[in-house]
Amino acid sequence: MSTPRNVPLRRALYVGTFIHCKTLQELDICENGVIGVDEHGKIAFLERDAENVDLVTAAHGWGDAHIVRTSSSQFFFPGFIDTHIHASQYPNAGIFGQSTLLDWLNTYTFPLESSLANVNTARVVYSRCISRTLSHGTTTAAYYATNHVDSTNLLADICLDAGQRAFVGRCCMDSLSPDFYKDISADAAIADTKSTIDHIKSIDPTYGLISPILTPRFAPSCTPPLLHALGQLHRSTDLPIQTHISENLGEVQLVRKLFPESTSYAQVYDMYGLLTSKMILAHAIHLSTSERDLIKERDAKISHCPASNSALTSGGAKVRWLLDSGITVGLGTDVSGGYSPSMLEAVRQASLVSRHVAMLDGDAAKLSIEEVLYLGTRGGAKVVGLEDRIGGFEVGKEWDAQLVGLALVPEAKAAQHEGALCAESFKLPSGEGPVDIFGWESWNEKVAKWVYNGDDRNTLSVWVKGRLVHQRS
Amino acid sequence: MSTPRNVPLRRALYVGTFIHCKTLQELDICENGVIGVDEHGKIAFLERDAENVDLVTAAHGWGDAHIVRTSSSQFFFPGFIDTHIHASQYPNAGIFGQSTLLDWLNTYTFPLESSLANVNTARVVYSRCISRTLSHGTTTAAYYATNHVDSTNLLADICLDAGQRAFVGRCCMDSLSPDFYKDISADAAIADTKSTIDHIKSIDPTYGLISPILTPRFAPSCTPPLLHALGQLHRSTDLPIQTHISENLGEVQLVRKLFPESTSYAQVYDMYGLLTSKMILAHAIHLSTSERDLIKERDAKISHCPASNSALTSGGAKVRWLLDSGITVGLGTDVSGGYSPSMLEAVRQASLVSRHVAMLDGDAAKLSIEEVLYLGTRGGAKVVGLEDRIGGFEVGKEWDAQLVGLALVPEAKAAQHEGALCAESFKLPSGEGPVDIFGWESWNEKVAKWVYNGDDRNTLSVWVKGRLVHQRS
Repeated sequence: MSTPRNVPLRRALYVGTFIHCKTLQELDICENGVIGVDEHGKIAFLERDAENVDLVTAAHGWGDAHIVRTSSSQFFFPGFIDTHIHASQYPNAGIFGQSTLLDWLNTYTFPLESSLANVNTARVVYSRCISRTLSHGTTTAAYYATNHVDSTNLLADICLDAGQRAFVGRCCMDSLSPDFYKDISADAAIADTKSTIDHIKSIDPTYGLISPILTPRFAPSCTPPLLHALGQLHRSTDLPIQTHISENLGEVQLVRKLFPESTSYAQVYDMYGLLTSKMILAHAIHLSTSERDLIKERDAKISHCPASNSALTSGGAKVRWLLDSGITVGLGTDVSGGYSPSMLEAVRQASLVSRHVAMLDGDAAKLSIEEVLYLGTRGGAKVVGLEDRIGGFEVGKEWDAQLVGLALVPEAKAAQHEGALCAESFKLPSGEGPVDIFGWESWNEKVAKWVYNGDDRNTLSVWVKGRLVHQRS
Repeated sequence: MSTPRNVPLRRALYVGTFIHCKTLQELDICENGVIGVDEHGKIAFLERDAENVDLVTAAHGWGDAHIVRTSSSQFFFPGFIDTHIHASQYPNAGIFGQSTLLDWLNTYTFPLESSLANVNTARVVYSRCISRTLSHGTTTAAYYATNHVDSTNLLADICLDAGQRAFVGRCCMDSLSPDFYKDISADAAIADTKSTIDHIKSIDPTYGLISPILTPRFAPSCTPPLLHALGQLHRSTDLPIQTHISENLGEVQLVRKLFPESTSYAQVYDMYGLLTSKMILAHAIHLSTSERDLIKERDAKISHCPASNSALTSGGAKVRWLLDSGITVGLGTDVSGGYSPSMLEAVRQASLVSRHVAMLDGDAAKLSIEEVLYLGTRGGAKVVGLEDRIGGFEVGKEWDAQLVGLALVPEAKAAQHEGALCAESFKLPSGEGPVDIFGWESWNEKVAKWVYNGDDRNTLSVWVKGRLVHQRS
């Protein structure tokens, strides 16, 4: 169902409708497009309104290229970028009961994560998680693993093997964690983190597909010496960092108690040199205005995780308020605080949660279809620092894309059985996704239908850096 | 994929795990059950902890019965009851933009509904809508059609043919509606309504599967003479009624202006004899305490439509507050204010929306998995007045059920490839649903995973009144 890593890429032409985000407010819809992707997986050219594909092929001398065409109810769309997902928590997706963050960690999360000390367990969990996220069109993910070196290294191996672009973080946690699942010291946490960095360097020396990411679990799980050492490591390596911030009110109070010398949660990270333009902050629900301004000043990025925030009753993040201040925002599934590994679900929930925020803060808080799709693609690309390489279809960018297909309702057929309705009328074609198209919809309406009712069945093929990494069977 | 209506039913034994709602708070999980369903589609017996199926069969003299067995990752669950769905709006599912109720009606809804004056259009829309709702496990639905007699009658025909239990309502609307889509008078609305009642009586004389339902669109769409005449028709026929109430603040203000003599929205319906125990009120978001008390006093029922209420930014219904007062509550998809025809999505959204209500009103507002499933089955059965016939598995009830299957992750297989990871590890079995089971989950956890990540792929078979009405191909 995918092209193995050792098979060289062929040049390929993608022909038909492609849709991507032009700006936060606007989709770019190109109905008769041709995109040429070279043997390095890069977009070599892009022709709009191409009436005759043969002419385009000839003009570029690409007669030998492999051709992929869309039908009238299909379109190419950029792959999704999941800016916050705990691969290690995947088996718990959907299991959280009535909990909120701090009891959820102890009840559900730490026991599961600690079980990934066993590499065979980790292999089962990570293989399935990566298969699923690819099938949902996630071409790039910022993963939390666990604090185990071998399992974390295995996650990097699996991502590379599966062809998914990934940031893989060994989770640092030397405080307020259970004895059975904890770094024994700040030094040990740093040494283990360096081991995973070395491993990733050995399998992907240029970080072309897989990159390490420094991962202090969250401030309450880290002692000041660990935060300090991670800040040093960040400065010396320039590696990206990911963590959590201000997800839950109890957590915010705990941080205030644990770090009495700091003026805010954001300032804790800032104090240790972690709040930089390479920092991904997940959640950011209960920020003060001054925290928001500090985050903006440092150009740190925010991963909005709407499904998780509803599920754990954490709160409704004020995304409009963040965007208006100029902060870069992307989306995260946050499995398994978030119940779903699907970025399309994250996109949909970003829209729905923004409506709950709007019920309190007014209509301006509502995010449009265009905006939530932007957050899931271009926004995410900026969050992970890859906006020059992925997130949209432009010459020079890499081909991280999905082919989306919708089900066209067979109008004529159903209309035949005027008098006697027969069983045939009720038959749903097997394998077709849940999105029904009746033929009169504009492209914007088709996209809206996909966002609100689509699932992995609509993601027919997925490419990363030009390589086919998933195809529906 | 289903048993035609003219084939007589055989006695059938359903063997394996069945799960249904014992109370609002508790699931009844029976792992080794046998349910015998007779040739009338009724549950004749139910054996728990049945070690030996042959002994059960022999004891009941059911040696000739057809047997359906579950595997270890499957269970029988009652069919869902959708207490509020506009079948006529199905093609718009997912299309609502940034609108709220009153502009949504004019922009999206009235134009689509009016197009169903064409019976061929209606046939395409209704066939697909019913196929989809059955595939999602909806065994009973309270449908809004349009104000067209022929199309409404066709919807009843299609439901009967497909074998779905349904309440079919011709929509009454003689006021504040566009000229191209409006009843010309109260008398005409009543005459047309009687035509659909007569038609349904002619195709299903005992209303065994299909029942008419009186359907004033909502108070602002009806003149006092129409509401008065519908009240009289209700008294003379004892037919159920469905309408909307207090979905949107602008709507509530409009009702106050249109009915200055009434003390509240609920009281408008009460004034015309419509607020009775057979009334289904959709939404009920912005009720005053006195309205809630009046609804309780009249024993009218409420259809909570969480997906719709988020999508149209209508508000968060206070379900706990309604339940605590003793009001009967069920769930509705409210397509296409609601974007999805899936009742499992309605169940999931009821949980998520209750968490947004809890963020304001406190933890008690949160609905548990058990509670939202109860609302989608037993609650719904009470809402449509069929609690003696459907909603759970008891002797004497009719077999309205779904077989749910989850995907068991092949642990052993993945663990084989220790050194060299191969493409095989990443292959997702085709046709399997999105819910992954790792083998250690309790039944309650499996159910939670289904509620949060399941879709129509997990609904393998659906029965109504003992008849197979859907099976995944």
